Amino acid sequence: MKIAILGSTGYTGVKLIELLLNHPFAEIVFISSEQYQDRKFSEIYPAFINIFDQICLSTDELIDNTEKYKPEVIFFATPNGIALKHAHIFIEKGIHVIDLSADYRFKDLKTHFKYYAIERHNPLDLSLNKLATYGLCESYSAEKKLELSSKKAQLIANPGCYTTASILSVLPLIALHQKNKDILDLSSFIIDAKSGVSGAGRKASTAHLFTEINESFKPYNLAHKHRHTPELEEFFSIYSSDNIKLTFSPHLIPITSGLLATSYLKFKQKPNQPESFLRDIYINFYKDSHFIRILPENEYPNTKWACGTNNAFIQIDYDPISESIIATCAIDNTIKGASGQAIQNMNILFGLTENLGLDLKPRMI
Amino acid sequence: MKIAILGSTGYTGVKLIELLLNHPFAEIVFISSEQYQDRKFSEIYPAFINIFDQICLSTDELIDNTEKYKPEVIFFATPNGIALKHAHIFIEKGIHVIDLSADYRFKDLKTHFKYYAIERHNPLDLSLNKLATYGLCESYSAEKKLELSSKKAQLIANPGCYTTASILSVLPLIALHQKNKDILDLSSFIIDAKSGVSGAGRKASTAHLFTEINESFKPYNLAHKHRHTPELEEFFSIYSSDNIKLTFSPHLIPITSGLLATSYLKFKQKPNQPESFLRDIYINFYKDSHFIRILPENEYPNTKWACGTNNAFIQIDYDPISESIIATCAIDNTIKGASGQAIQNMNILFGLTENLGLDLKPRMI
Amino acid sequence: MKIAILGSTGYTGVKLIELLLNHPFAEIVFISSEQYQDRKFSEIYPAFINIFDQICLSTDELIDNTEKYKPEVIFFATPNGIALKHAHIFIEKGIHVIDLSADYRFKDLKTHFKYYAIERHNPLDLSLNKLATYGLCESYSAEKKLELSSKKAQLIANPGCYTTASILSVLPLIALHQKNKDILDLSSFIIDAKSGVSGAGRKASTAHLFTEINESFKPYNLAHKHRHTPELEEFFSIYSSDNIKLTFSPHLIPITSGLLATSYLKFKQKPNQPESFLRDIYINFYKDSHFIRILPENEYPNTKWACGTNNAFIQIDYDPISESIIATCAIDNTIKGASGQAIQNMNILFGLTENLGLDLKPRMI
Amino acid sequence: MKIAILGSTGYTGVKLIELLLNHPFAEIVFISSEQYQDRKFSEIYPAFINIFDQICLSTDELIDNTEKYKPEVIFFATPNGIALKHAHIFIEKGIHVIDLSADYRFKDLKTHFKYYAIERHNPLDLSLNKLATYGLCESYSAEKKLELSSKKAQLIANPGCYTTASILSVLPLIALHQKNKDILDLSSFIIDAKSGVSGAGRKASTAHLFTEINESFKPYNLAHKHRHTPELEEFFSIYSSDNIKLTFSPHLIPITSGLLATSYLKFKQKPNQPESFLRDIYINFYKDSHFIRILPENEYPNTKWACGTNNAFIQIDYDPISESIIATCAIDNTIKGASGQAIQNMNILFGLTENLGLDLKPRMI
Repeated sequence: MKIAILGSTGYTGVKLIELLLNHPFAEIVFISSEQYQDRKFSEIYPAFINIFDQICLSTDELIDNTEKYKPEVIFFATPNGIALKHAHIFIEKGIHVIDLSADYRFKDLKTHFKYYAIERHNPLDLSLNKLATYGLCESYSAEKKLELSSKKAQLIANPGCYTTASILSVLPLIALHQKNKDILDLSSFIIDAKSGVSGAGRKASTAHLFTEINESFKPYNLAHKHRHTPELEEFFSIYSSDNIKLTFSPHLIPITSGLLATSYLKFKQKPNQPESFLRDIYINFYKDSHFIRILPENEYPNTKWACGTNNAFIQIDYDPISESIIATCAIDNTIKGASGQAIQNMNILFGLTENLGLDLKPRMI
Repeated sequence: MKIAILGSTGYTGVKLIELLLNHPFAEIVFISSEQYQDRKFSEIYPAFINIFDQICLSTDELIDNTEKYKPEVIFFATPNGIALKHAHIFIEKGIHVIDLSADYRFKDLKTHFKYYAIERHNPLDLSLNKLATYGLCESYSAEKKLELSSKKAQLIANPGCYTTASILSVLPLIALHQKNKDILDLSSFIIDAKSGVSGAGRKASTAHLFTEINESFKPYNLAHKHRHTPELEEFFSIYSSDNIKLTFSPHLIPITSGLLATSYLKFKQKPNQPESFLRDIYINFYKDSHFIRILPENEYPNTKWACGTNNAFIQIDYDPISESIIATCAIDNTIKGASGQAIQNMNILFGLTENLGLDLKPRMI
Repeated sequence: MKIAILGSTGYTGVKLIELLLNHPFAEIVFISSEQYQDRKFSEIYPAFINIFDQICLSTDELIDNTEKYKPEVIFFATPNGIALKHAHIFIEKGIHVIDLSADYRFKDLKTHFKYYAIERHNPLDLSLNKLATYGLCESYSAEKKLELSSKKAQLIANPGCYTTASILSVLPLIALHQKNKDILDLSSFIIDAKSGVSGAGRKASTAHLFTEINESFKPYNLAHKHRHTPELEEFFSIYSSDNIKLTFSPHLIPITSGLLATSYLKFKQKPNQPESFLRDIYINFYKDSHFIRILPENEYPNTKWACGTNNAFIQIDYDPISESIIATCAIDNTIKGASGQAIQNMNILFGLTENLGLDLKPRMI
Repeated sequence: MKIAILGSTGYTGVKLIELLLNHPFAEIVFISSEQYQDRKFSEIYPAFINIFDQICLSTDELIDNTEKYKPEVIFFATPNGIALKHAHIFIEKGIHVIDLSADYRFKDLKTHFKYYAIERHNPLDLSLNKLATYGLCESYSAEKKLELSSKKAQLIANPGCYTTASILSVLPLIALHQKNKDILDLSSFIIDAKSGVSGAGRKASTAHLFTEINESFKPYNLAHKHRHTPELEEFFSIYSSDNIKLTFSPHLIPITSGLLATSYLKFKQKPNQPESFLRDIYINFYKDSHFIRILPENEYPNTKWACGTNNAFIQIDYDPISESIIATCAIDNTIKGASGQAIQNMNILFGLTENLGLDLKPRMI
């Protein structure tokens, strides 16, 4: 598979390269970087000397000479607002596009505008938005996977890191709700999420200096001010055929990678044995999901266990006194929460087994 | 004020010493350490060379020779189970006791036994338990303060770190609930709390090695398994004259000091302008609380701002879409969450201004 | 003492404010910040709400209205190149200036130009440079202190953080060398220094993002490329009346504060008992230095012991097999290495005891 | 290749498993753990659920049933003192042994006793010690490699982490010294080394608690008190046919993995162009070393670049003013400094290309 990566020197770009170099069928034929154009990738990241010394070119170079590079799939690891300008050019040429930005994550473009303030008038972009698939792999049905792998050019809107962990923490419950609206009470649906700093990207900033972040912890953008809140609401609402609102609270952890979501719901109608009821639902729902680990009772996900892998560690709890359902999920925010899932999507698009190149070993030290 | 500190080389003991050395009226006349008996404090903590070189003695030495040392107040910075053996000896001699352990935090001793597995049969201990004051300073009324400062020997059960931040985050609401049960809906009362590692103490352990904690984040003891859950429930129930149950979720942050509580409640009866309604309640409730900082809108508490001080930073939010109340509170877990509050209690017991020796300056770097 | 601080929102500025708020005689009458002009200091640093809410003004405001604010001492916590423009204005008015930048640290202006690339033609600046005192407090003789405190307006060039720890680690040996050139061999004089990140300041930068620094360690500017190398050489050469060259190797530690220097020298003429010879020299040299702690044998300085204080922890070792002298010194880079020493200098200028406002307690957690 | 790992749950054991799971020809047939006997590896390290769920057995089980497990190579990832008891049993059976402890690193057993206090009287152990190969792979000649791969049972004494980085930093110079004693002056040979905390292992300890290590930096065991000092001296002396003494100064960095050595030497006879002379020597010496990266000028090794890989990043500098040679080398202390090098040795023993299973990609985030 010939691959192009736009925005190769940002954190999701670097992570794509790191992971694709381990993929048995992947060949990176083109990389771009607006900031470091015409420089070797390994000049920017000397850790890659002798490993990946390719030159960073420009997005325009790929647009102008697509035939020269012949990519079969293009990853947009670019800032918001780039894919919506260029994706249609490549889709028209029959090339798969996997967009790691937020450009194609919303069907409701009013919400997109409200949270991203990007005006969109290009009819090619607008019609492409309708066709885009929201790329949370574990939410795909068998039919959906078949459909994805049977078409020539697909646009995948790869989910955000907060949304991936949040969705995975409760997806079996939302699937249950889709079938039966009488079991769960979603009126106090809360996701309290905590992310490592790599989610903020590599842009120079005072707020993300080591000295500002280190040895501190903070919430931010509470009360529907964070962009991932409407992304979650739209996904859950479409997936469950309901109108779901939730309280989403992001927090910043002083670690480089790792993200944990702690999710809270209630039962409308409490089953006889809520603990085993919940556990069965989770185990059953995820039984074919290669990257999901449902933890044994009383064992809670550590972000470190997920780091360096595409795995998600999940625990499902029931508090018998407060009668809350508590679901926790840990991922590596730049792997399962970004570049790893993007490659998982690529594998699905090409009809490969999902875990090809992604059976990464955890790193305890 | 002559002061004795039992358990001086544990983290709350060290922090008491650090802070009391800055207190204008405090004189440390006695320190104990079972582990480092007969050694200089500054041998264990060389940072204190030339600053505090006192010798660590034993608890028995103080019991046997109380008259020699003449302490007016004794801090138990000891493991659980020590104060309930010895506190009554000192109280009988008319000496104030401030216990930083959990021994005297529960009026309901069945709950204490359930969570701490310590049998208590000594009638002196049992009657003392009834008299003990739960030491969350900001919850004292003016009358309570007057009462505390007017008696000779008092036993203060200094609250835990998680409970301090959790209570402070919602105390104005619980006070409101005490007066009017129709405004708040406490059926989905959730506190999602995150603590630095110093809360785990200084005992050798594999689980708290640098290499195990660093660059990871995890929940633990969810679903009513953490000891601070019943402590919170008892406090809130007594304070509001209601029977309050809650979901309390502790998490471990890879930082030394700092603790944040993110608390969620709902309105039973939504006021017309929920944001300003809430803000007014908080500002009014805390208007005389020297250590509380209600933050301006859209500014969220960073644990670092509180660290090194006895201050608590609080934000109160209303999410107009999910209709949740979200309260956040950051403290230094070993100062306001332990030793600082213990000194604040000491100041109250002696009728001093609460902030004496506690106007600590924040440390940005 | 009425104090003005120029550059109050950079890290050395914030640290000056934090420390001066604890100084019994200090009154901050003026602060400037070019970046945050006309904003409250506590808006920039909310940790200071209710503690220090003064408004940041401009340097020009102080120049134009010096009489209004009546400062007796002005701290330049500004970037390099600011003090050399303005210091003479205040000195002429009889106001003490303590410059925390590098502007007045070099007598040899060719070296200054080589390393800082700032042209200097103003005769007022040039003559001021001749009068400036290099402000390493522990290097002052009793006469020097008397002289400093007896004059009206003095310009102190406060040393850099690397230079402070480096000098303190070997100052007793350099003093010995001043008296007798036959004892020490300085031909392989090496200082391997390691600094926390706060030394890099608060400017937005990709290289100092949390994600770039965290969990890494690196040397930089080796082989006479770091600006503190010639500062050390000039100081040591003047102090010992010799021409001293050295190898200075800075490294970056992923911690906010703290700096350690490990220094290596040899004997030209080895004394009979080198260990006790060295120890005696150090203890004797520093016997009246309030902030210096010579550690007991086999105990090595931890940067954390020094952090939050103006203290320097020093160990002096002799390796009997390799015949090296090894001196280690740990300081807090923004206190003893910057703002704390600046206040120590202020105390000296005003004839106060050196430690006034600087007896800070170490923070173990 | 059938592999047994003794001491599989310590940090070097876990790292061996992590790496061997990526090795195309490796099959782990046996693991032991005294502490966690009869428990699943993935119970101790839940990150390995579904990845490596093998049961930890005892060393005795392997001794008693070697024929059952049929290992071709055994890794001792055990504490010091275990391999010297058991290695000969397996060697006699024709099985390769790679010992990651210090047991077989010294030819001079008096030095071993002095630093490790382990008495050795077993003649099988003593004769094995003579045959053991010191396993610094980049020091092997082509002949040595051929010899190693041609014999049935070999004992490799895998070097320590400090020694690996220290040796690699100066090996080209020591090789030069072997040929010509007139070029280098080793009378002031200093290695100032800095290590991450994983080197201290996983044993419960107060000194290595997160709260004790975090945000601090310290030297320890200076002046020939660290065990890696004589290991370095013996290696350098044998390798160069000289009697080499050095000053070795270890420091602890608050990071999990990563190690940097900063080494200092002098010229006896300075070449005309010392910079290019040195650079040529390094490039030439390491031209066939797959894992060595000589950095471009002015670029210095970051430990993070090496972390997660078996690579060593090296810079060689000459300070024209102080006339010092400064060599820096960064490695991952548990990969190139332990388990990765052990696998590299395994590859050599089996005549495979050295990098099989070891072409690990660096992880920038």
